[in-house]
Amino acid sequence: MHEDLLKRQQQPLLIVISGPSGVGKDTVVRRMKERGLPFHFVVTATTRPQRDGEVDGLDYIFVSREQFAEMIERDELLEYAIVYDDYKGIPKAQVRRALASGQDVLMRLDVQGAETIRKICPDALLIFLSTRTEEELIRRLERRQTEAPEDLKLRIATARKELRRVDLFDYYVVNAEGELDHTVDTIMAIIQAEHHRVSPRQVRL
Amino acid sequence: MHEDLLKRQQQPLLIVISGPSGVGKDTVVRRMKERGLPFHFVVTATTRPQRDGEVDGLDYIFVSREQFAEMIERDELLEYAIVYDDYKGIPKAQVRRALASGQDVLMRLDVQGAETIRKICPDALLIFLSTRTEEELIRRLERRQTEAPEDLKLRIATARKELRRVDLFDYYVVNAEGELDHTVDTIMAIIQAEHHRVSPRQVRL
Repeated sequence: MHEDLLKRQQQPLLIVISGPSGVGKDTVVRRMKERGLPFHFVVTATTRPQRDGEVDGLDYIFVSREQFAEMIERDELLEYAIVYDDYKGIPKAQVRRALASGQDVLMRLDVQGAETIRKICPDALLIFLSTRTEEELIRRLERRQTEAPEDLKLRIATARKELRRVDLFDYYVVNAEGELDHTVDTIMAIIQAEHHRVSPRQVRL
Repeated sequence: MHEDLLKRQQQPLLIVISGPSGVGKDTVVRRMKERGLPFHFVVTATTRPQRDGEVDGLDYIFVSREQFAEMIERDELLEYAIVYDDYKGIPKAQVRRALASGQDVLMRLDVQGAETIRKICPDALLIFLSTRTEEELIRRLERRQTEAPEDLKLRIATARKELRRVDLFDYYVVNAEGELDHTVDTIMAIIQAEHHRVSPRQVRL
């Protein structure tokens, strides 16, 4: 009877976890990985220096500027952007492979990257992570202390601007301090619900 | 920053659990009640005879045909319909009161009723319950045995017609045999997700 609809509901989703810098995108995605969820977690290529505790090929693919330039030239990236002097990009082949295998593909992207994905794939599922207040966001950025003071200032200004781009997104989730699991539960509910739409999203890349 | 959005996300939803006769609407809603979920479960007024185990005022408001006619005349019903010779209707005041108190309002309705709600309130959240196959639906109707054979035939024909109205709905959920809790979990995920939309539904009655 509704075999066709059921089949379309099972088609994989292209899920973007985004939001301003400092909102906890990495932490949220790491917790999702820890839960062993059946997603393909996209590994982003980046030219930025490896931070303590980060594993190459798992957290990011760390590449040189030269290698990154080659990936751009060969059109191997779904999207890329300059983020605070460093390049970040999503390997196209990796995403296509995962979608072809039927897995939901999940990636964390800055707001600029999410905008690009929306243009490439209008039916992508875009989730905006936020803090409860602007003050909390700034506090988290300050606490991070991986940047020089002038970088921090730039990051705060960018975050403020990014907070205004929420209309581009499908869902808005507050990642409140100390409630990481609640945030992950909400994201999981959103993904589950999306697989029951009468008009399923159509991911084409 | 996004105080207005957060406020609009918390606005109560008008949720309709619908689907063809025999699909298990009553059982699903009963399980939701058992879980003590913080919804207002609408109590439908009906002229049909009370079945074993049903409690007046809790499962339905059982009224006479005369009483029902008065409710129609006084425009006290949000929607009403003739279902197999019996009248069923949703008391308007009850729904308005619940929404005003900030509670999500949940009602089970036949497909015809869901259509009416869509017209009255385009932003209502409509969930279509289904079985995995048409054969399973017919089997469930036969098993019920509350009707005379000619009524059963009519019910099957209606169910078949109702299965084709799925496009009216927002979500499609299979209530598979023996997986009642999974069905309820899915509905809960849908409601949770809906409270995180960047464009929240606007319920006006």
